Amino acid sequence: MREAEKKDILQRLKAIEGHLRGIQRMVEEDRYCVDILKQTRAVQKALQKVDATILENHLQTCVTRALRSENEEERTCVIEELMDVYHLIDRI
Amino acid sequence: MREAEKKDILQRLKAIEGHLRGIQRMVEEDRYCVDILKQTRAVQKALQKVDATILENHLQTCVTRALRSENEEERTCVIEELMDVYHLIDRI
Amino acid sequence: MREAEKKDILQRLKAIEGHLRGIQRMVEEDRYCVDILKQTRAVQKALQKVDATILENHLQTCVTRALRSENEEERTCVIEELMDVYHLIDRI
Amino acid sequence: MREAEKKDILQRLKAIEGHLRGIQRMVEEDRYCVDILKQTRAVQKALQKVDATILENHLQTCVTRALRSENEEERTCVIEELMDVYHLIDRI
Repeated sequence: MREAEKKDILQRLKAIEGHLRGIQRMVEEDRYCVDILKQTRAVQKALQKVDATILENHLQTCVTRALRSENEEERTCVIEELMDVYHLIDRI
Repeated sequence: MREAEKKDILQRLKAIEGHLRGIQRMVEEDRYCVDILKQTRAVQKALQKVDATILENHLQTCVTRALRSENEEERTCVIEELMDVYHLIDRI
Repeated sequence: MREAEKKDILQRLKAIEGHLRGIQRMVEEDRYCVDILKQTRAVQKALQKVDATILENHLQTCVTRALRSENEEERTCVIEELMDVYHLIDRI
Repeated sequence: MREAEKKDILQRLKAIEGHLRGIQRMVEEDRYCVDILKQTRAVQKALQKVDATILENHLQTCVTRALRSENEEERTCVIEELMDVYHLIDRI
């Protein structure tokens, strides 16, 4: 990962950690369930943005390199991995 | 798309269409809401499997071709498109 | 389900069926994968709107009736069912 | 929230916080993108389990109380709130 992206992702993960501690306080203070749910959802949304950054970086580096390779197995393997990521994200 | 995949996808879309007509009958017959919801979800799951097949085919053909190209713009463009596809998933 | 809602849901399911037939034509005509994916996603989104209408109706009728009942088992049962619906929808 | 549930949720949120710190280390150590993605997804899944517990508790307490009330406005309001919660899920 490029240094700028790494720093950005680490900052965002740090912020999410703080957010999570805030949610723990809300639970301790018996705050309204629906308000807590809104915050746990906000954390999940923030994590999804981190995922998007990591995935974009992965496509630009590892996937591009593998698909440009002459090694067919390497190409097949990176596509299988991308399908796994799709299934990880894919949810209903 | 290869002929075998095309045929498979068309068959599955046809089956989903039949499933949808079944759901319409359930609504007409005043069937229990939760049973109807289970069926509309099953249709969505079936559509996601179709999506997975189309995406895998896309990665193996268009994306591989574009990322192997010497044209940097083409490479950037196919990655942006893929990010859209992954974001589409996140948004459903 | 009230007649107005039933009619509305049936109309929307009918429209979704038409949309699905359009997607089959796109596949037959070898249209671009990403354009097809956008359409299957649109169908899933439309189905989720149908789900929301059915769920709201369910909450206003069956769930309200069950939770107002003096029968504890009936109350427990409707909540378990709602959790099932949540898990059906809940996806990551 | 009942004490047992509160304690359980706090423990799980604490564990998720630890998981998040582990992901930060993975990023610092330049671990493989796809392995990091799998971990951020696992955190999201763990948060959804917390959500399910909070939602179930909400249905058993606040929602049951509101729907048993004679105040129609209160009943309408709790249903609207529940629809928001289900839409939140659809939007993630």
